[in-house]
Amino acid sequence: MAWWKVNSAGKDVNPDLASERESPSFNVETLTNILDEGAEETRVRRAVVSIIHKDPVFSREFLYFKTRTERYEGAVKNSFHIKRKMKEMGWNENGREIAYIYRALGGETGLNIHNVFIKTINALGTDEQISKWLPLASSYKIIGTYAQTELGHGTYLRGLETTATYDPSTQEFIIDTPQISATKWWPGDLGKTSTHAVVLAQLYSNEKKYGMHPFIVQVRSLKDHSPLPGITVGDIGPKMSFEHIDNGYLIMRNIRVPRENMLSRYSQVLPDGSYVKSGSDKINYFTMIAVRVSMLQDEVLEALKKACTISVRYSAVRRQSELKPGDREPKILDYQTQQQKLLPLVATCYSVHFTAKYVAKFYNDVYGEIRKENFSLLPELHALAAGMKAFATEMCSNGVEVCRKACGGHGYSLYSGIPSLYTKVTASCTYEGENTVLHLQVARFLVKCFAGAQSGTPLPTSTAYLSSPPAGGCQARTPNDFLNPEVYSKAYEYRAYSLISSAAKKMQSLVQLGSEQYVAWNNTSVELVKTSIAHSHLLTVKIFISALNSVSDHPEIKAVLTRLCDLYALHGIVTSAGDFLQYGYLSGKQLDMATTAYLGLLAERRKDAVLLVDAFDFTDDQLLSAIGTYDGNVYHNLLEWVQKNPENKKVNPVFETYLKPHLQSNPSKL
Amino acid sequence: MAWWKVNSAGKDVNPDLASERESPSFNVETLTNILDEGAEETRVRRAVVSIIHKDPVFSREFLYFKTRTERYEGAVKNSFHIKRKMKEMGWNENGREIAYIYRALGGETGLNIHNVFIKTINALGTDEQISKWLPLASSYKIIGTYAQTELGHGTYLRGLETTATYDPSTQEFIIDTPQISATKWWPGDLGKTSTHAVVLAQLYSNEKKYGMHPFIVQVRSLKDHSPLPGITVGDIGPKMSFEHIDNGYLIMRNIRVPRENMLSRYSQVLPDGSYVKSGSDKINYFTMIAVRVSMLQDEVLEALKKACTISVRYSAVRRQSELKPGDREPKILDYQTQQQKLLPLVATCYSVHFTAKYVAKFYNDVYGEIRKENFSLLPELHALAAGMKAFATEMCSNGVEVCRKACGGHGYSLYSGIPSLYTKVTASCTYEGENTVLHLQVARFLVKCFAGAQSGTPLPTSTAYLSSPPAGGCQARTPNDFLNPEVYSKAYEYRAYSLISSAAKKMQSLVQLGSEQYVAWNNTSVELVKTSIAHSHLLTVKIFISALNSVSDHPEIKAVLTRLCDLYALHGIVTSAGDFLQYGYLSGKQLDMATTAYLGLLAERRKDAVLLVDAFDFTDDQLLSAIGTYDGNVYHNLLEWVQKNPENKKVNPVFETYLKPHLQSNPSKL
Repeated sequence: MAWWKVNSAGKDVNPDLASERESPSFNVETLTNILDEGAEETRVRRAVVSIIHKDPVFSREFLYFKTRTERYEGAVKNSFHIKRKMKEMGWNENGREIAYIYRALGGETGLNIHNVFIKTINALGTDEQISKWLPLASSYKIIGTYAQTELGHGTYLRGLETTATYDPSTQEFIIDTPQISATKWWPGDLGKTSTHAVVLAQLYSNEKKYGMHPFIVQVRSLKDHSPLPGITVGDIGPKMSFEHIDNGYLIMRNIRVPRENMLSRYSQVLPDGSYVKSGSDKINYFTMIAVRVSMLQDEVLEALKKACTISVRYSAVRRQSELKPGDREPKILDYQTQQQKLLPLVATCYSVHFTAKYVAKFYNDVYGEIRKENFSLLPELHALAAGMKAFATEMCSNGVEVCRKACGGHGYSLYSGIPSLYTKVTASCTYEGENTVLHLQVARFLVKCFAGAQSGTPLPTSTAYLSSPPAGGCQARTPNDFLNPEVYSKAYEYRAYSLISSAAKKMQSLVQLGSEQYVAWNNTSVELVKTSIAHSHLLTVKIFISALNSVSDHPEIKAVLTRLCDLYALHGIVTSAGDFLQYGYLSGKQLDMATTAYLGLLAERRKDAVLLVDAFDFTDDQLLSAIGTYDGNVYHNLLEWVQKNPENKKVNPVFETYLKPHLQSNPSKL
Repeated sequence: MAWWKVNSAGKDVNPDLASERESPSFNVETLTNILDEGAEETRVRRAVVSIIHKDPVFSREFLYFKTRTERYEGAVKNSFHIKRKMKEMGWNENGREIAYIYRALGGETGLNIHNVFIKTINALGTDEQISKWLPLASSYKIIGTYAQTELGHGTYLRGLETTATYDPSTQEFIIDTPQISATKWWPGDLGKTSTHAVVLAQLYSNEKKYGMHPFIVQVRSLKDHSPLPGITVGDIGPKMSFEHIDNGYLIMRNIRVPRENMLSRYSQVLPDGSYVKSGSDKINYFTMIAVRVSMLQDEVLEALKKACTISVRYSAVRRQSELKPGDREPKILDYQTQQQKLLPLVATCYSVHFTAKYVAKFYNDVYGEIRKENFSLLPELHALAAGMKAFATEMCSNGVEVCRKACGGHGYSLYSGIPSLYTKVTASCTYEGENTVLHLQVARFLVKCFAGAQSGTPLPTSTAYLSSPPAGGCQARTPNDFLNPEVYSKAYEYRAYSLISSAAKKMQSLVQLGSEQYVAWNNTSVELVKTSIAHSHLLTVKIFISALNSVSDHPEIKAVLTRLCDLYALHGIVTSAGDFLQYGYLSGKQLDMATTAYLGLLAERRKDAVLLVDAFDFTDDQLLSAIGTYDGNVYHNLLEWVQKNPENKKVNPVFETYLKPHLQSNPSKL
């Protein structure tokens, strides 16, 4: 067969990639098991992924060619098929398999907010409400969504404008969208699918306002799916990604729902309109944090891991230009500039991995405390989750884009798999709390801790360093001195301390000079955002360092992760050098040493690069990338994929309409 | 009519946007004229844009819903219609109108590489070749493309693998794709449209290799458009953007073309196979530079200007959260963090604008010299164009993405207009020379100049500062001292000087310690990239400063641009603080002062923000943004656009297939 009619049969691993795997300094499988938290978990994960990929209903072939409508239909189809599959396999609805299924499908599932609808009723409904609505929702007899965000308000919940006014004469709530900006906007599954919604609305009763409360509202007919009277509902149109999700909008004109439709576990309106609180709703607050915690692992980190896998493998196969005159073109991974782009991101994957695990554990611990009515750790948990959400989403999104560009032109093709990772993961900087807003919330916590430290109040563990900043400047005398967690974690502490202290003092002095508090806050907010970033950065370094101890049973893995931790930390110092120099903790010469140590690590760890991404253990089906497959047959794959392109099998209609009249007028014999 | 059935008729300007325009400190129209380089040019531009927008054939309505195929067909249609329109209007093919047409259509035109095909024949063909091929191409009797990049090689041209072997027995060249990696990849118009291509191939004659040469090869039949025998050709599939362009791939199996098909202005193969050079081809080199020069203005800057216009207007209309407790929600533009995101980018637009003009002028000057056979300025021009291409594409792409995120959730909707700006402009970091590669080319020039300075060789103007670095550290004593071009341009000079000097010394010392030259280069390349960035950054600051003198006739404009220049320069100092501190030119305290000056400028220039983007003078049709229209009716537009969404008028097929069976099984009376 002619070589240009490519097919996948019997391909060997590209020798350029095979050679990267020849003499590993550590066992990749062991590292995979560590990331999975146990060999048994690796086994389960692989079994689930394999079952999903073998099922033709779940096929993702031609995904990059699908229209929005096809993506949406495919996602809904997947969701119903997942239900069947789980039953068939005997997997539990709340078991660990569901997360692996979701990842195996690259998140291409529908009815995700229907699940939020269910969870919300479970969390905020009375037992009666739960027993009425949950059986309906679980069996898809109704399809729900969660309608919170409006055209005019997102992260700032207090500003939401939808109203729910109680009418004691009929014992109903009147749900209303009073103006354009109050239109519900963004809820997933609402655009084309839902029949019901939990609507968040400002409650009014007896002319008093009681703030945001949840109400169940039916929006579409169960019979023919048409919008109910008074309801305007539809899809909000195309987005940068999430083609498979029908994010929707919703206008409600004086829709009446019975009093029983307000979810009333924590507060209810009595028939006469009086408002009764029943218990604390602090626990609700928790749902929001839970989402921030789980998205780190499932959405954000996953995208960077995939992008690193693709770009590192590609860089070990792509040969370009020349280094040594006359020699064969080198692998682009041998260029220092390429190492500088990719290796710190591989290190970031590991950092975020351990961070996500840490935050999840802290969350569970606090949850345990809260069930014992101990709320003391809540502020720290909130700051931790908010800071890590903002810090990690920014790092991971930017990182994915760096990976994409590092693949040159091929990174721009959807076939590389990276563009769709980026356009999706970048949304995480905005949803579940806009990053700048979150950083400012963390900063408020930090400034409070700093003030506490000044007055001798004991501080939460994560900010304990604010009571005793490292004194005396950095002690490093040689580049090698920087390959020491003690040395760089102190530098990060000093940086965070200095920025927080400086911002706090600036605010204080502005107030002393006569500014109102809120003006001083706003005029310091650029610096306050920096404090949150520096603090979160410090935490990730510390968490990485302490994770090293957990792998002491595997000295060769500990060795490689230790250097990766060094790399992560030194890269941060080199790229945010200003913060470390400004307050004199590092001298210019020490920064030079840190840079030398950092560049030395790049050259040294380059040999682990492919192994470190192999350990993420993605299947080719998961990566959906022509340039990132395990076998590294990049050009072969690209050619195969374009030849499969359905578009290339069609006649180009433009030929008949526009080209032929000109071409055919050609008298010569070309 | 109900308020939620929105329409555009008779909308007033949103009072929040109107108030921004109430008492301008300068005349916006005058600034627009300055940007256009004359009121007459403003008039012409507006006339062209208006004519294009009034023509229904060019309508861009529903662009965000179109499939790749529809986009492609629309772009080809546009191109043919432009031809007709220009004839109708009496516009000259080489006149200034064409650039305005292109911009009015947001670049949504086809057959762009067909024009490169024409230009290439014009530049590299003999008179005979020109008179044979140009009439055919100009009248679309053939459609051409320019096939250079291959699967295996992009920026590194010497690595291209397609061969052209001369066969004296038949006086033909045999054009061949010897293996997969030699497949031509990316040429625009090739995927579905072209009948011919200028193919770049390694010339072999009498078993000698002569390097890359251009050959005209027919790829498709003029009769039925099918690929000719031996040709495999098609579309390379979906990309991150450029949906309207049919980038293609091409495999040629021993295709014979007559000897006359090698473009032979500068070199030819005689019938017996002997190779003859005729004149210098240095001028060709120029084409590549010309593209880099023109793309700055037409593609890269245009995207950032649009993104700034949209995000600044939106930020003056969007109200969110609270600053002063109890007060009305403030415009988000009043938050310092939002100003920090957007104002430096508005300043960057002006900086890149003046830079693009400067580079274009320098290009023309050098072109004049070259026609007089004076090639002495060529290295400086190359470094200038390469450095500015890499620097500006990176800044503008990143800037567009910052604008998008600054619009929160609405920035993620395609309706905002910004996602499609980003996914398109980011490609400019890769095409026409990958940025890291270009920066390293500039660095090579800088290191050479630095060595020259050491040995007393006179330096080109742009690097003259390398002979006499600013001595004695920065003299600023107060924040206000930093509002001084003298002060900050010296700081930028010192920074560039220090980085170049440090990189050069490092390389020298590596070589002295026994490294081979190429190893020393590679091990310094991360720092070398920094030198090019610092040098390019310095040039943009200097060019901005000198542009201020050109507006001296308009003191109120000069005043506002001077502050914008300060803002641009100080933002750079604050965000790259490490470079300025490391070598001791600024002290930590001075960096504090610079930060204070910078933050002060944000608060102060916030009032000009809307006016400064209004001056870019985009029509709503050009912006194609629901949230960036001149009238600022953001929510109104969004609601109107979703209600026009053709998807929302269709029945959802998922209802019948997946939902109904469940919903209909509902026994209760919901």
